[in-house]
Amino acid sequence: MIQTILLKNRPKGTPSPSDFEFIKEEDSLTVEDGQLLLETLYVSVDPYLRGRMSDAKSYVEPFELNKPIHSGVIAKVLESKNDNFKEGDYVSGMLDWKTKQVSSGKGLQKVDPSKADLSAYLGILGMTGLTAYCGLIEIGKPKEGETLVVSGAAGAVGSVVGQIGKILGLKVIGIAGSDEKVELLKSKFGFDAGINYNTTENITKAIAEVAPNGVDIYFDNVGGPISDAVLFNINKFARTVNCGAIAVYNNTEIPKSISVRPFLIKNSASMQGFIVSNFEDKFPQAIKTLSGWLADDKLTYSETIVEGFENIPQAFIDLFDGKNKGKMVVKI
Amino acid sequence: MIQTILLKNRPKGTPSPSDFEFIKEEDSLTVEDGQLLLETLYVSVDPYLRGRMSDAKSYVEPFELNKPIHSGVIAKVLESKNDNFKEGDYVSGMLDWKTKQVSSGKGLQKVDPSKADLSAYLGILGMTGLTAYCGLIEIGKPKEGETLVVSGAAGAVGSVVGQIGKILGLKVIGIAGSDEKVELLKSKFGFDAGINYNTTENITKAIAEVAPNGVDIYFDNVGGPISDAVLFNINKFARTVNCGAIAVYNNTEIPKSISVRPFLIKNSASMQGFIVSNFEDKFPQAIKTLSGWLADDKLTYSETIVEGFENIPQAFIDLFDGKNKGKMVVKI
Repeated sequence: MIQTILLKNRPKGTPSPSDFEFIKEEDSLTVEDGQLLLETLYVSVDPYLRGRMSDAKSYVEPFELNKPIHSGVIAKVLESKNDNFKEGDYVSGMLDWKTKQVSSGKGLQKVDPSKADLSAYLGILGMTGLTAYCGLIEIGKPKEGETLVVSGAAGAVGSVVGQIGKILGLKVIGIAGSDEKVELLKSKFGFDAGINYNTTENITKAIAEVAPNGVDIYFDNVGGPISDAVLFNINKFARTVNCGAIAVYNNTEIPKSISVRPFLIKNSASMQGFIVSNFEDKFPQAIKTLSGWLADDKLTYSETIVEGFENIPQAFIDLFDGKNKGKMVVKI
Repeated sequence: MIQTILLKNRPKGTPSPSDFEFIKEEDSLTVEDGQLLLETLYVSVDPYLRGRMSDAKSYVEPFELNKPIHSGVIAKVLESKNDNFKEGDYVSGMLDWKTKQVSSGKGLQKVDPSKADLSAYLGILGMTGLTAYCGLIEIGKPKEGETLVVSGAAGAVGSVVGQIGKILGLKVIGIAGSDEKVELLKSKFGFDAGINYNTTENITKAIAEVAPNGVDIYFDNVGGPISDAVLFNINKFARTVNCGAIAVYNNTEIPKSISVRPFLIKNSASMQGFIVSNFEDKFPQAIKTLSGWLADDKLTYSETIVEGFENIPQAFIDLFDGKNKGKMVVKI
């Protein structure tokens, strides 16, 4: 039997299990010339998928209703009629939420389980690491000695951004949602300071205390009131890297904020949104650099690995409660 | 007698005449070695001065209470003990709101009344023109065929931005506050279309109608709800040039807006604040280009010239009601 997860309803607000539908069908897959048969091993669940579940204009096409959802997947090649892959290879790519599937091989990359855990290719050596690296380097344009604030700092991208910041000689402050996460930022990821937004009354003041020289780069994964609070601390020529807005993705009305414009004008500051594919030409260099840092133990990562194909929707939903530490991955 | 205008109170909300104080004193000015005696001919009043009247953190120091206000001024040299200037020269620079004053000559530029009207050196060949040129070129990064929306389009900076846009082959849409201004945008400044925000119910829809290909560059002089409306029309990789926020400068509370962040992320778009002095190294080239366009009649400008030193505060206050067409200048 092959299992598949379809998008049943476009979520209103926070996604719920009833927005997803599981179907089972007989395994009648056949592999034609040029194709591969793949067995899904790991599935990546990521906040950006929320955007694709809506039909609002977005940077990518919305998922179709009653069709399989897809995301980053690590799979094993069970059978190959494609010269680029052979049985037993491991690959990563954008694939359906399906236990087994046939692929043309297009867009798949081979990954090497002897160099890193397979799940790492969905995280630090995959989109997560590339997002952190390209966003910080290409948009943040960090200079040694500057101060970097990261929101969603204990998340998959945030924890990598902070570590790269430290490697590059920045002062790094993370904002996260529990004391446990803040502790992890400092002990595991080497952040200089952490702020628990759930227990801090005045985030602007808390940042000012740990960043007395102001904020030069703000790597923003959350996009809500926490980001407003950071604005009061930005320096002249500050750069905000708008990576995500998980705080507002589930809003059913257009979210409000304080107006960022006077802050940008006063400080000659910038905000720049991006998706990682804007920087595709930088990927080979980025992966090389990240792999090197990983091999040298300059970089580490957290994963929350949930087991079982049937738990993919809940793992995705749990992202919005911050139940993950680092990259959320489902092992099949 | 010499007249001077002091800042008496920090305005709350919209400035009022009572925030300014006029003083008269005997003319006992003496010129020492290296100094100049100047007679004020034209005074520039500009929205950005509102920021300097507050004591909030800004990009420049706030004006001091009970001290003269200063802004761009064109003056005539009455007496010179400075080798760089001689009696009868005309100069432009940041000078006090004073009918006569002594200067060290620092920061003053000679201007040539045979090449352009003296008031033009406060406008199209001064900070206004430089702001329009540098903001559009350096931040907007225009490419032929793109669509540019300008708010405050009939204002000093906006009307120049639109014309430069046309020279560079852009489709240019202006947003202004009256039918008369909208007409002027099209007939005098060559904009492709104009929108009267006071009579247009749905600005987002109105932009979509005249910009069916979406907005690539938004040159923002106003920063309020009009700018929110533009967000819904931006294209992938759109650039917002945050030049001014006159719509919110008089707010006594921190202004709210819809959250720009999801729009920036969805579109890989940017917002960049600036002040013209960020681009000082581009000024010589910019002035040369602007002068050339002016001489070739590719560029024109509007001025609202108010007469009388005593009318400077009211001319400034009138900016916030949009009573000016183009650059607001006071002739002494």
